[in-house]
Amino acid sequence: MAKEKKQPRPKAETPKGFRDYFGADVTERAEMLSKIAGVYHRYGFEALESSAVETVEALGKFLPDVDRPNEGVFAWQEGDPEGKADWLALRYDLTAPLARVYAQHRNDLPTPYRRYAMGPVWRNEKPGPGRFRQFYQCDADTVGAPSVAADAEICAMLCDALEEVGIARGDYVVRVNNRKVLEGVLETMGVEDDATRDAVLRTIDKFDKVGEAGVRELLGKGRLDASGAYIDGVGLGDDQAEPVIAFLTSKGEDADTTLANLQSAVGDSLKGADGIAELRQIAGLLAAQGYGPDRIVIDPSVVRGLGYYTGPVFEAELTFEIKDEKGRPRQFGSVAGGGRYDDLVKRFTGQAVPATGVSIGVDRLLAALRETGKSGDSAKGPVVVTVMDRDRMADYQSMVAELRQAGIRAEVYLGNPKNFGNQLKYADRRQAPAAIIAGSDEFDKGIVQIKDLILGAEIAADATLEEWKERPSQFEAPRDDMVARVKEIVDRYS
Amino acid sequence: MAKEKKQPRPKAETPKGFRDYFGADVTERAEMLSKIAGVYHRYGFEALESSAVETVEALGKFLPDVDRPNEGVFAWQEGDPEGKADWLALRYDLTAPLARVYAQHRNDLPTPYRRYAMGPVWRNEKPGPGRFRQFYQCDADTVGAPSVAADAEICAMLCDALEEVGIARGDYVVRVNNRKVLEGVLETMGVEDDATRDAVLRTIDKFDKVGEAGVRELLGKGRLDASGAYIDGVGLGDDQAEPVIAFLTSKGEDADTTLANLQSAVGDSLKGADGIAELRQIAGLLAAQGYGPDRIVIDPSVVRGLGYYTGPVFEAELTFEIKDEKGRPRQFGSVAGGGRYDDLVKRFTGQAVPATGVSIGVDRLLAALRETGKSGDSAKGPVVVTVMDRDRMADYQSMVAELRQAGIRAEVYLGNPKNFGNQLKYADRRQAPAAIIAGSDEFDKGIVQIKDLILGAEIAADATLEEWKERPSQFEAPRDDMVARVKEIVDRYS
Repeated sequence: MAKEKKQPRPKAETPKGFRDYFGADVTERAEMLSKIAGVYHRYGFEALESSAVETVEALGKFLPDVDRPNEGVFAWQEGDPEGKADWLALRYDLTAPLARVYAQHRNDLPTPYRRYAMGPVWRNEKPGPGRFRQFYQCDADTVGAPSVAADAEICAMLCDALEEVGIARGDYVVRVNNRKVLEGVLETMGVEDDATRDAVLRTIDKFDKVGEAGVRELLGKGRLDASGAYIDGVGLGDDQAEPVIAFLTSKGEDADTTLANLQSAVGDSLKGADGIAELRQIAGLLAAQGYGPDRIVIDPSVVRGLGYYTGPVFEAELTFEIKDEKGRPRQFGSVAGGGRYDDLVKRFTGQAVPATGVSIGVDRLLAALRETGKSGDSAKGPVVVTVMDRDRMADYQSMVAELRQAGIRAEVYLGNPKNFGNQLKYADRRQAPAAIIAGSDEFDKGIVQIKDLILGAEIAADATLEEWKERPSQFEAPRDDMVARVKEIVDRYS
Repeated sequence: MAKEKKQPRPKAETPKGFRDYFGADVTERAEMLSKIAGVYHRYGFEALESSAVETVEALGKFLPDVDRPNEGVFAWQEGDPEGKADWLALRYDLTAPLARVYAQHRNDLPTPYRRYAMGPVWRNEKPGPGRFRQFYQCDADTVGAPSVAADAEICAMLCDALEEVGIARGDYVVRVNNRKVLEGVLETMGVEDDATRDAVLRTIDKFDKVGEAGVRELLGKGRLDASGAYIDGVGLGDDQAEPVIAFLTSKGEDADTTLANLQSAVGDSLKGADGIAELRQIAGLLAAQGYGPDRIVIDPSVVRGLGYYTGPVFEAELTFEIKDEKGRPRQFGSVAGGGRYDDLVKRFTGQAVPATGVSIGVDRLLAALRETGKSGDSAKGPVVVTVMDRDRMADYQSMVAELRQAGIRAEVYLGNPKNFGNQLKYADRRQAPAAIIAGSDEFDKGIVQIKDLILGAEIAADATLEEWKERPSQFEAPRDDMVARVKEIVDRYS
């Protein structure tokens, strides 16, 4: 007989840079996002779930190239019977779709339009450790409100959201800065050409690392770095460097001091003064609602991402310490950021519409909750009802039904019941808090055996023989008491 | 001066066949899915969120074609610097990814593996009214459990899920059938060639429309249909048609009667007998847990999708009546379906692994909940605090902060406050239950004006002048009573 030609088997693999999420990784994230959504909703924000697929034209930024599709996005040309072939792409963030949605539906949306959005985005980038090509974003934006009251509101909402998911007050701080202040600094320095401007911004970004003296050197002639290499400076005079130093060292004991220091950094710049006035307004609005400097501070060191923003910018940092890979303590760091940006929809409509928003780093915030033990409870496995006697399946099913009715997660073992050891191994793998055992003996006597698997594991790990005898991890119970006795075990470990 | 050449503006449009979801459409679906997930979790099912993007190789079924990517899926060739170019695609359902995930991670997963998954899937199909190219699926499957106890469990879980989201007992029924019974019918008819087999199956599918006599004609010589056209029959003899008729009319008063009738339909077929035995076991297991025929029935008329399944099949139908587009009453119909299918991962591993599962039609179930008024509450808008005096923004912000702390959804109007009428129009558009109004007069007196917008709309619609006077929709309240008075309004309408 002729053998059928064998097809090679397909590989069972996620595409490079993609991953699957199992169990608690899914539910804990969903719980966290649901709590955040609750806060956003209470602030009057409306949910928006835009299509995951956009036309490349609407996404903008990335133009189709005939041979090589768009860098940075996953894009493809849609086949069309009439020969027209649109380029489609997966969204790479939630802001570009917001722009498209607002431009498309603006006549049906209220103005201002407050919306939040949560969901996966996709980047066609080289994957690396911890860098995936599909990840979650969680954004809230107010479109069409020019007032800084909208920015202040988002800062307050961010505080509430962090506390709602379980970050304690005192364990986070929202830092607020204003892009216009930095513009004022550059104005008062007399920096006009783009190259110098970029060099100054890059230098400002190094303040954390090189300190005040280092920044002075880098703005001036240059600096010998730690490795012994000489870094060329920007070539500014000492007096030109002064506003930058004043700006970087302006953070005072309270908002008033910081704002006064900033005033001296921006000199006569109107733009700078405007930025400072906005910061003062934001601080005042927040203070009136009880969001004091224990939660929100004016902090000129927030520079990251300033290029994209046009007014107030903000960043939420977690201030508690964690251990890095090498066991050294370090602050957890940033979990959210945002600010005001103009012209959200101008490319669609020709009309400038101001917007301000914040994006929470979903994976980082979830990691932080795990660090602090505020997430992870949902990982508990089900109570496993073992199968001693296949013909009693209906009785086992009744047991799990009763347990579930009492709100206890429970399941019957549905694998091959022959090897009982495998059933207990399965229960372990499922992280079951307890197993129920009942064969014909137990059914005859109207009892069940209950195995406390967590206590069992504890005893197995470190108990003496005496303790072992005193704390039996398996015990008999009348069938009618099963739910109550299991509930005791489940409650003890929750 | 030379004018800059104007780029044409991009179109702000979702791609053809895609849509955006706003507000309550997002939150009501999320609430419904979260309740279903709670039930699945209680049954010991684990969440799984697989990557939205799969290799075309792993998805199977669709093979890449150099010029014209895969029918039915959105697929693209990934660029790779080394010249290797994988075909990637968006998942078109949640079962194909489950097969890939199980094959990839089977050594780390428990056996049996119970998992649920909820999320969007994508189909590259011609869109139509109500047919979108991105939509939600919500699946639960048990992999690696050959026992029909797994099927029974899924039927029970489906009942619990429907009741949990708000479908009342009595308003739904889960119908159970078994593919093997139908195979037994074909066997006892002596139908062996595929063409006849398909013709018989197609005829069975017409039972609802043409009735017993019609099926007899269509299995025999043929039939004159309503339009006067003659439909050729399958050409079977009367005795051959008998088992089909027995099968189609086997539904009795209770499961026992139905099963006895089915027995006569399958004659001596071992496969048929096997199918009936499985149905009897399922009915027994479910009855033991209290899932009687008011919720789950053995029903041979469940034929849809039988081709894909290999054992038990089930379908959940909502039995209450709704009006169709023409105002005629009709049953709401199917909202979920599933069954047992073999060889989930065989193409990856060479090993047959049995699986059984159910898929809930997310959009249909949500529509059903809206029909019955069980969803829609979350659509309530926020209380809108209007802005009479821009300089009092901090005071208005304090008001919303207090309202939110009392759990009341609230927001300050952040548009241009000049035209007060616009603020009230905005509040209407937001479906605000109440608006707060406070200018310098009110601040001086320590009061606020509260406008009950829902009562206001009712009065405007149908009140007499007398009623109007008696039920003022706007009233003064001391500032300190604001939260309590607003809460009265919000509670009245919830």
